[in-house]
Amino acid sequence: MTDISSREWHLLRRPIGMPKVEDFELATTKVPPPVAGQVQVRNLWMSVDPYMRGRMTDRESYVPPFQIGHPLEGGAVGQVTQSDDPSFIPGDLVLSMYGWREAFNAKPGTLQKLPNVGLPPQAFLGIAGMPGLTAYAGLLRVAAAKAGETVFVSGAAGAVGSIVCQIAKLKGLNVVGSAGGHDKSEWLKTLGCDAVIDYKAYANGSELTAALKQAAPKGIDIYFDNVGGDHLYAAIECARPRARLVICGMISAYNATAPLAGPGNIISVIPKRLRIEGFIVSDHNDMLGEFLGDMAGWITQGQIRYEETVDHGIAAAPEAFLKLFSGGNTGKMLVKLT
Amino acid sequence: MTDISSREWHLLRRPIGMPKVEDFELATTKVPPPVAGQVQVRNLWMSVDPYMRGRMTDRESYVPPFQIGHPLEGGAVGQVTQSDDPSFIPGDLVLSMYGWREAFNAKPGTLQKLPNVGLPPQAFLGIAGMPGLTAYAGLLRVAAAKAGETVFVSGAAGAVGSIVCQIAKLKGLNVVGSAGGHDKSEWLKTLGCDAVIDYKAYANGSELTAALKQAAPKGIDIYFDNVGGDHLYAAIECARPRARLVICGMISAYNATAPLAGPGNIISVIPKRLRIEGFIVSDHNDMLGEFLGDMAGWITQGQIRYEETVDHGIAAAPEAFLKLFSGGNTGKMLVKLT
Repeated sequence: MTDISSREWHLLRRPIGMPKVEDFELATTKVPPPVAGQVQVRNLWMSVDPYMRGRMTDRESYVPPFQIGHPLEGGAVGQVTQSDDPSFIPGDLVLSMYGWREAFNAKPGTLQKLPNVGLPPQAFLGIAGMPGLTAYAGLLRVAAAKAGETVFVSGAAGAVGSIVCQIAKLKGLNVVGSAGGHDKSEWLKTLGCDAVIDYKAYANGSELTAALKQAAPKGIDIYFDNVGGDHLYAAIECARPRARLVICGMISAYNATAPLAGPGNIISVIPKRLRIEGFIVSDHNDMLGEFLGDMAGWITQGQIRYEETVDHGIAAAPEAFLKLFSGGNTGKMLVKLT
Repeated sequence: MTDISSREWHLLRRPIGMPKVEDFELATTKVPPPVAGQVQVRNLWMSVDPYMRGRMTDRESYVPPFQIGHPLEGGAVGQVTQSDDPSFIPGDLVLSMYGWREAFNAKPGTLQKLPNVGLPPQAFLGIAGMPGLTAYAGLLRVAAAKAGETVFVSGAAGAVGSIVCQIAKLKGLNVVGSAGGHDKSEWLKTLGCDAVIDYKAYANGSELTAALKQAAPKGIDIYFDNVGGDHLYAAIECARPRARLVICGMISAYNATAPLAGPGNIISVIPKRLRIEGFIVSDHNDMLGEFLGDMAGWITQGQIRYEETVDHGIAAAPEAFLKLFSGGNTGKMLVKLT
């Protein structure tokens, strides 16, 4: 029983605007053998997600900010290597929030064994994990989507958006997705989107609005927002009476150094009786069982497909994270650690 | 049975920005004796309301725009003078949408007899009418207000706002109201507001936000918006998690000649899980009976008080309407026609 070496990413300084690789520091630490009920885990996969940008800023929010000089955190899937707790044995696959590192010791309560539903381990960081539940809860509970409605999904080629589009199709909705670039747009069509908007083809909110009006001539009943900015403006313009605009993310604003203008058409919430509602996935953890059952079935029956963009090795993690903001990922962005 | 003379206001041209008296034209018409089941009414009171500004612009909305050269419309209370319909007799007091005129003939289906609940006729244009129901439905149904919560009401000295504040106090909420100027602020205190913000004392949204933070140090659970702009920004800044922001009006934007910027802090809807929801009173007419019962009781028991700002004579109507945008009214703005 000896110490093992683990590399882990620390926050070196708080990014201003778009994060840079130099804002992060790769440190090497020693992980001692587990003691006092601890479990030792070697990570196989780690997740990078847009919401992590928020934790790099020092402000009060629903999760505390990352601390300078401390390891970053995030979703990870690993394998138990040693255990001083009877409920875990070496070889168990576990989900934790101990991402951005190769190995760690933890208390059993911070680890979840992966359910055996026929999915590969990294699926629990994406389609069958937090992004999947985000899509499921946001569309079905927060937006209360109904068959026959039209939903507009921004960031539709991302980890969450691509699942929203597919669940919406399964539930009988008409789906308009927006993504950046030709390849992503083509991919969205293969997922079943009824119309696709390549937002990079449009110069401003007015043009994007015109494109959305063309894609959804009768208007939209639901907007699933991952982007904010011009996309939210266009959604309000095209919203039908009583539309629900569920705000999951606003990636266009995450690296802003000054507050961006809000939607200049916000007044339309009155005549159209719109509801704009923000949500976070952890408020909907009660749906996890129902979600996993549905999702495992949909995947094994080929009704939902998923894409992963995979970078390799712990050293690549910050660059993988930055790809989220440059459109470098299609589907779930992951780092494979072993 | 001879024709009678009636003066009525026509829309001469569509206002650009703040309406001017010259945008309206006072015409004199002849009202013939009622025929074929018609009822003739002489108006006693007419209402001017902020929402009418929207109908002066030619755009699609939940009510059609006023037509150039045609009489304006709006809430009015009048007395039946002649009737060719057996359900109405001379002397009956009726509510209609035939405002901005002295007399008219109408079909019985467009007239509502005033209920006999011990209130003066003009109350059915304010406290017991559309503004009252707006306050009641917006606070109790749309915002789902609960005892112990804190509500922030903008335009709190207006027809709707002053009723929201009082219903909120009756329901056990902590109430912060904002209004323009010392006199209105003092009046709001007499209505029971726990804290009052004189928004004219603050130069911008940051200052208004600081004032609201001081008035509601633990944050707000509900925002009842009649104003928009900086008030909405401040409300989002001070909103507690899961706050409901119900948007009844945005009078600060009604005369804008270009779209105003939306709230620059709209992104906060995500971490705070806020709901921003617009509503219009006509969607809540099913609550009218319950509302009238409650309100008549509250007024006769002295639990709710109301103020009216009254101008006199049909000729004064446009100026009365314009007072809504300059803060010239406290409580309900009315024009007494006889």
